[in-house]
Amino acid sequence: MPIDTGDTAFIIICTAMVMLMAPAVGLFYGGMVRSKNLISMITLAFVAFAIVTIQWVTVGYSLAFGSDIAGLIGGLDYLFLEGIGTGGDGIPDLLFMVFQLVFAGVTLTIVTSGVAERIKLSSFIVFGVLWTTLIYDPLAHWAWGGGWAASFGALDFAGGTVVHISSGFAALALALVIGNRTGFGKYSLEPSNIPTTLLGGALLWFGWFAFNAGSALAADGVAVNALVATNIAAASGALSWMVASWVFGKPSSLGLISGAIAGLVAITPACGFVEPIAAIPIGLFAGLVCYGGLILRMRMNLDESLDAWAVHGLGGAWGAVATGIFASATIGGVNGLLYGNPAQLLIQMADVVAVILYAFVATFAIAKIIDMTIGLRVSEEEEYVGLDIAQHGESTSM
Amino acid sequence: MPIDTGDTAFIIICTAMVMLMAPAVGLFYGGMVRSKNLISMITLAFVAFAIVTIQWVTVGYSLAFGSDIAGLIGGLDYLFLEGIGTGGDGIPDLLFMVFQLVFAGVTLTIVTSGVAERIKLSSFIVFGVLWTTLIYDPLAHWAWGGGWAASFGALDFAGGTVVHISSGFAALALALVIGNRTGFGKYSLEPSNIPTTLLGGALLWFGWFAFNAGSALAADGVAVNALVATNIAAASGALSWMVASWVFGKPSSLGLISGAIAGLVAITPACGFVEPIAAIPIGLFAGLVCYGGLILRMRMNLDESLDAWAVHGLGGAWGAVATGIFASATIGGVNGLLYGNPAQLLIQMADVVAVILYAFVATFAIAKIIDMTIGLRVSEEEEYVGLDIAQHGESTSM
Amino acid sequence: MPIDTGDTAFIIICTAMVMLMAPAVGLFYGGMVRSKNLISMITLAFVAFAIVTIQWVTVGYSLAFGSDIAGLIGGLDYLFLEGIGTGGDGIPDLLFMVFQLVFAGVTLTIVTSGVAERIKLSSFIVFGVLWTTLIYDPLAHWAWGGGWAASFGALDFAGGTVVHISSGFAALALALVIGNRTGFGKYSLEPSNIPTTLLGGALLWFGWFAFNAGSALAADGVAVNALVATNIAAASGALSWMVASWVFGKPSSLGLISGAIAGLVAITPACGFVEPIAAIPIGLFAGLVCYGGLILRMRMNLDESLDAWAVHGLGGAWGAVATGIFASATIGGVNGLLYGNPAQLLIQMADVVAVILYAFVATFAIAKIIDMTIGLRVSEEEEYVGLDIAQHGESTSM
Repeated sequence: MPIDTGDTAFIIICTAMVMLMAPAVGLFYGGMVRSKNLISMITLAFVAFAIVTIQWVTVGYSLAFGSDIAGLIGGLDYLFLEGIGTGGDGIPDLLFMVFQLVFAGVTLTIVTSGVAERIKLSSFIVFGVLWTTLIYDPLAHWAWGGGWAASFGALDFAGGTVVHISSGFAALALALVIGNRTGFGKYSLEPSNIPTTLLGGALLWFGWFAFNAGSALAADGVAVNALVATNIAAASGALSWMVASWVFGKPSSLGLISGAIAGLVAITPACGFVEPIAAIPIGLFAGLVCYGGLILRMRMNLDESLDAWAVHGLGGAWGAVATGIFASATIGGVNGLLYGNPAQLLIQMADVVAVILYAFVATFAIAKIIDMTIGLRVSEEEEYVGLDIAQHGESTSM
Repeated sequence: MPIDTGDTAFIIICTAMVMLMAPAVGLFYGGMVRSKNLISMITLAFVAFAIVTIQWVTVGYSLAFGSDIAGLIGGLDYLFLEGIGTGGDGIPDLLFMVFQLVFAGVTLTIVTSGVAERIKLSSFIVFGVLWTTLIYDPLAHWAWGGGWAASFGALDFAGGTVVHISSGFAALALALVIGNRTGFGKYSLEPSNIPTTLLGGALLWFGWFAFNAGSALAADGVAVNALVATNIAAASGALSWMVASWVFGKPSSLGLISGAIAGLVAITPACGFVEPIAAIPIGLFAGLVCYGGLILRMRMNLDESLDAWAVHGLGGAWGAVATGIFASATIGGVNGLLYGNPAQLLIQMADVVAVILYAFVATFAIAKIIDMTIGLRVSEEEEYVGLDIAQHGESTSM
Repeated sequence: MPIDTGDTAFIIICTAMVMLMAPAVGLFYGGMVRSKNLISMITLAFVAFAIVTIQWVTVGYSLAFGSDIAGLIGGLDYLFLEGIGTGGDGIPDLLFMVFQLVFAGVTLTIVTSGVAERIKLSSFIVFGVLWTTLIYDPLAHWAWGGGWAASFGALDFAGGTVVHISSGFAALALALVIGNRTGFGKYSLEPSNIPTTLLGGALLWFGWFAFNAGSALAADGVAVNALVATNIAAASGALSWMVASWVFGKPSSLGLISGAIAGLVAITPACGFVEPIAAIPIGLFAGLVCYGGLILRMRMNLDESLDAWAVHGLGGAWGAVATGIFASATIGGVNGLLYGNPAQLLIQMADVVAVILYAFVATFAIAKIIDMTIGLRVSEEEEYVGLDIAQHGESTSM
């Protein structure tokens, strides 16, 4: 198939929209922290995206999509974009490369949840390069680059395992290594700028259409199926989390938008494999699961501060499992449990477990090594004055 | 015609951009209210979009676009997206469905103007489901789903009647039923966060390109005509409102952005039927008409709080009429008054009157019934503390 | 070549994304000024975009792209869009017109840097019309409309000279004419709303993908090359400025985002002519050059307030020169110094000098004439209370 202008137009714009998700995560998280760390959270997202950009075009793309080595990792064929041109199949190879780049960049922004308001910028940069190289790149290879997960038959349309389980459980591991924020559990650490979070959430919802529909890599029926399922799941998750939180108190806007993100996460692996209307149960349940995860996390007195674990980790796991339940061969060629193929559900569960284990253990190890060498965490004094001033010499309240 | 990748790419992205208009309306309105209701306004927009999403895929699309019943409403053929697939003519049927979904979602956000700072969230949810089902769906059917308005020859390219007259006059009806805000007319109720309004306006201007150009349902010359006319009308409306307000005082940024929205509203029904350069008079006059409407509304001491009636209601009416004046057969196949066909102007005026009457009366009835049963309005105490805390348990100033 | 739906879809969406850059510049600059001038900065961007819209469809497009007169300016063939239709080559002529319109609109927003916090709105409107007509339109003609620069062989893919050198040196000339802000150098004039600047920067990064890739005017391999180079340059500039500022103090978020913009500016003329990987050195050096320019500007006690000169002027000059160094015939048909064609570098340098001279001198003259007649600057009292209240009767802190 030669290059198609419609498909190429589509993926170029999708790439831009997914790029915007990186600062959108920064805004989403930034509004949730105390105002003394708002700039820090947004900056971490930009830094994450910038370092992954360089990592990806020099090394990362090759590790993820280079010729397969034992199902585990890609070879070094494409270092420095060597041999990646503007020819291709439907879309230029170089466009596929950059579409994957923005996925990798956004994924690293999510893990900042686990270290919010206490990470040293220099350590985050070191961590980010290592994490993308040692965790994201192999996971992308497993699912999309010809690795074992794809061979095994695991389905992940747009990154339920690669992007969401990985970042969510990485945030959990990071939080365990870096420790709770000073005062966590004793003082109220309320979100200081909810409208900023809502703006970030709006841009995420917008960008997610490109994230999921664009993963069809063509402007075709599968992309449209993904688009419709994505929007339905977002709305369903928003409503179920909101209603659940209403039962126990007031329906917060943070619950609403968190539920939307939960729905979006859960539909990510599924949206090219399930009927659009299946996004209603997938999204509704995602809102409940992730809300439950948040409650559980707080009960455990665990400061995975902005709930990447509950929303992305658990939401991604549920979405990957749901793909094994709701997949319909009429959409993406594979049936799930409901269509008489229970084996797919088992495959999905095995994949989920493997990715959770790898992401959690490897992140924990990287974080521990960094912590024992250059240190992950700012000093208590710096935490007290806030990272905006302490790390960046800036403030929102000048 | 088979599926075209260029057209499909175009409408997928347009769908995403129109979706973003829902939170953009929330930001636009949120900046205009007192800070104690900022979160509430943004949240209403998200809630509106979420409930319409579910309404639309279960029932609404079928009511609007199902097989015609007496020119008034669609049948139940497409409940739960039954029979809506990824085949189609130029773009997949399922893509047309979701493009219409985001229109319906955004329309409901506009009506929140009339109940700003005093609506009960639960009542808004009930209202929203009823309003979309009983008012938006029929109106969409009339104009675009094979109903009487289209048969009658009325032109509405992208929703001057369906979206703007309907929501603007619905906001007026709501405001009359719910009553003025406490202190309205006695105390100054100044906008608390103008930069947020300007950001919302910027995103609306951006999304409107997709709203109008996308209504061509193809990446063709008509779409481009609509795009160019849309931008010209926005600029013209911005400048005329700004200059008009300058005559009586200072040129406010709110006047500028309101004028841009007025121009965008007015060009909405016209943009696929008129020469691009006709957008200059249409936009200039829209700025003046809507500014005049705002002055009139304030003189009448009527708290249609954020001027959806003046901007969307009057702007939409002017735009529908202007379509009957400026339409040129070389653009969209139909001539208006200026091209020797005064009958089109009469048709447009009849359509405007019909939609105003239906939207206003039916909204008034729905609002009244809700008000008499579960109540539309929060308690005076809740209004005093603000909806952010009272309804959502949140605050912008934590 | 007939109209292609993929190319048309692409450029319609790119037009919308570039339009969004106008308010994005307003947000970017708005966050950098004192809070009493935040609304003013955003408003200037909207006003700039609105007046250029009208200028362009009435006169400007014709001056830039009408039939060539002596290599200097276009003729009056296209006044009021006369003869610009929806036929064309790949994309409709009318789409090319509006894509160029949004470029012109965004360019004028950049010059507001030089007059921040002290310009009279009325004078800015007069200036804007004159500047676009007398400076932007000829420059666009020189490079893209069949003028002398293109004939001479100068390369400017997406506006290094037309957009960035022109606006950056115009801002410098304006700053010299209008004079420093009261208190500049004596009191700290710290940015008051850095998150708003970061949001503006995020939207600029997003829009720049459309600005540069869209300049291919087709969804093809050149567009993809431009897209990839653009993102790499942004990341490289962000990291080099951040690291450079880290050496002398703390790594500020403003440095990071300014570096990203510097990288984006520098790759603008080059992105359709150089290998993507060349964007690493181009971007890295852009960050350093523009950071150095800022330091120099401050040492000279020159209040070109928001550094359009350092970032756009110097960044654009470096980018145009870099195009002459890194251009590779395999990408855009022309070789630069590194590929054995030193002549191209000389051509680029000559073009840079010509554009700097014309933009600086002509802007200085226009600004001086306006200053001597109606006055450029608000009164000292108005400057003291701030332009939000003084010029617009509005405030962010109501």
